[in-house]
Amino acid sequence: MSDPLIVDIHTHVYPPAYIDMLRARNKVPYIHDPSDSGPPRLIILSSDDDSNIPLDQRGRPVDSSYSDIKVKLDFMDKHGIDCSVISLANPWLDFIGEEQASEWAQKINDDLESTCAQVNGAAASSNKISRLFAFGTLPLGATEQVAVADEVHRISTLPHIRGVIMGTTGRGHGLDDPELEAVWGALQDTQLMLFLHPHYGLPDEAFGGPEIVRRYGHVLPLALGFPLETTIAITRMYLSGVFDRFPKLRILLAHSGGTLPFLAGRIESCIVHERIFTVNGGSIPGPQRDIWDVLKTNIYLDAVTYGTAGLKAAVEAGGGSTDRLLFGTDHPFFPPLNEEEDQWTSVTTNYKAISASFGEDQDAVAAVLGGNAVRLLNLK
Amino acid sequence: MSDPLIVDIHTHVYPPAYIDMLRARNKVPYIHDPSDSGPPRLIILSSDDDSNIPLDQRGRPVDSSYSDIKVKLDFMDKHGIDCSVISLANPWLDFIGEEQASEWAQKINDDLESTCAQVNGAAASSNKISRLFAFGTLPLGATEQVAVADEVHRISTLPHIRGVIMGTTGRGHGLDDPELEAVWGALQDTQLMLFLHPHYGLPDEAFGGPEIVRRYGHVLPLALGFPLETTIAITRMYLSGVFDRFPKLRILLAHSGGTLPFLAGRIESCIVHERIFTVNGGSIPGPQRDIWDVLKTNIYLDAVTYGTAGLKAAVEAGGGSTDRLLFGTDHPFFPPLNEEEDQWTSVTTNYKAISASFGEDQDAVAAVLGGNAVRLLNLK
Repeated sequence: MSDPLIVDIHTHVYPPAYIDMLRARNKVPYIHDPSDSGPPRLIILSSDDDSNIPLDQRGRPVDSSYSDIKVKLDFMDKHGIDCSVISLANPWLDFIGEEQASEWAQKINDDLESTCAQVNGAAASSNKISRLFAFGTLPLGATEQVAVADEVHRISTLPHIRGVIMGTTGRGHGLDDPELEAVWGALQDTQLMLFLHPHYGLPDEAFGGPEIVRRYGHVLPLALGFPLETTIAITRMYLSGVFDRFPKLRILLAHSGGTLPFLAGRIESCIVHERIFTVNGGSIPGPQRDIWDVLKTNIYLDAVTYGTAGLKAAVEAGGGSTDRLLFGTDHPFFPPLNEEEDQWTSVTTNYKAISASFGEDQDAVAAVLGGNAVRLLNLK
Repeated sequence: MSDPLIVDIHTHVYPPAYIDMLRARNKVPYIHDPSDSGPPRLIILSSDDDSNIPLDQRGRPVDSSYSDIKVKLDFMDKHGIDCSVISLANPWLDFIGEEQASEWAQKINDDLESTCAQVNGAAASSNKISRLFAFGTLPLGATEQVAVADEVHRISTLPHIRGVIMGTTGRGHGLDDPELEAVWGALQDTQLMLFLHPHYGLPDEAFGGPEIVRRYGHVLPLALGFPLETTIAITRMYLSGVFDRFPKLRILLAHSGGTLPFLAGRIESCIVHERIFTVNGGSIPGPQRDIWDVLKTNIYLDAVTYGTAGLKAAVEAGGGSTDRLLFGTDHPFFPPLNEEEDQWTSVTTNYKAISASFGEDQDAVAAVLGGNAVRLLNLK
């Protein structure tokens, strides 16, 4: 069999206009450019904006990998990736207020669309698939949710947009917010994929306070805070009945669902034993569909777990088929610390985990590496 | 092959002396007994001690299942359980200050020991195994950690004590606290199993605030807060190098590790990419053993995940063998809401998950149901 097509569905960019906007800010999220004393610093996490740390050491160095699409294409070549579905990196437009939200979303989405068109137009005709597609971004801070829904409808007509990326706070009140109903409706109607991604992590107190968090660098916020944030967000969405009211929503969860596949059984058990839900004769509805049904019908998972245990749970939670799992890299995050490394450890670890988990079934490997993305996102 | 021996390693009690102490208190944890207007209420979670809720509806009803060992034995008979390793339920002695900590620990441990001796002495001689063993409890609030270590050594000589149960806060500062080194040393020396169990969950803010938490009853704190708490606690313990300094510690993690098996890959990847660890040329040591080695050497997991996805990840994280997974029920928690049910749904769900995960290998099923507990805890 020929080499499988490889599609990266978890790969981020900051278009130049977004970078310029971050440079003009001086609170999170922002870019500090010390000019002569080193590379610019990207400070997107509140925990990184620590006044005990000199400004030119805060956050992480930001280089052209974040905004120069040529660097993304080189990264793809180096790792054998045929096609990338790029998405704005966190924190997206979460911090943009109502006056400018729609304008910024249109600007970013049109920029993503034209980047895809330009790159695909210039690519060699021997390619098996277009090089780039994109997940758009939404003006969640807009006054009216209908403005958000309008942008969903608008971008669904753009040739290279295949979904939208969204954070876990939605319009600021979580994903069980009634102010998101029009957005869920628009996503269901257009069948755009919703790529749900963390950014805020957990409050420092969850880890034992800021001193404990700092002690271990970024490990607690990134290794635990991010996936736990995703798990909480999707669980609230599920508990509030979103999947009962919008049974055809399609959601791609970052980092294989945070921890949702592992905890689905416990969530279901706690619901069955919860007196306040009317399914148990209680006072509020509770979800009407069981979580396994939602996992098999509405939810897709990226394969970004860096190990076989996560991948096997992800597949098992979806009913045992590899048809809902999609390869991703999280580029440009987690670059190698040793710059002499040719391929990125963060990427090869995920490649190896896919091979170790499903290697006995080459069709399953090909599905996870690219076939599922091609089918689900209609990539050509 | 004959029916496999079934051992429940996750099953809690409140000895009568502990119940009496809770009755005498009026802040969390406490028991409120309304005498004429219904059964006593057990209020152990801060979130349950809500002044908006009438006192006689707060928390959960507490009946004899919590303290009467006859009820435990009936539950065992009804569910085919041959042997239970009972442990004090949360919040253990976490709230007992230094003056009384050691005295209470001795009282509880001696009580557990005599309950086991009494029940086993009265049991039919046809039983294949003793009916009861116990995990002891520790006086973690004692002034000196050596007093805690002394109690570890003392109970290691009691005939029916096979380990200790501990919460995630240790001596109040988490499990990466240097004030626990003597305790880890004593546990390693005695080879008593440490059963690590959650109680505190996550701060309400992690879920979006108290109003959101209340909206869904106990689901968010119990389904997500508990396992995420366990994951954070064991990860801090690992990051601080406890398993480097005490390479023979044996830890049984409640609820299959919270979410540790699922997140182990991401934790390992974040460590490999974390600049502050000396393994990467940084400023602090970081763990010297990789997390997979710890999962295969030091960590055991209960099989309390209510689904096959959790169980398969638990086994995969431990290297693919079912030798580290142990059946449990969480009795007396999660009783059926419909009192007419004969067997408890929370128990049958776990039985079914074990059978569905490993049913093609009857030796593996037998190991998980009881064989592993017999071997690892030296049950006779």
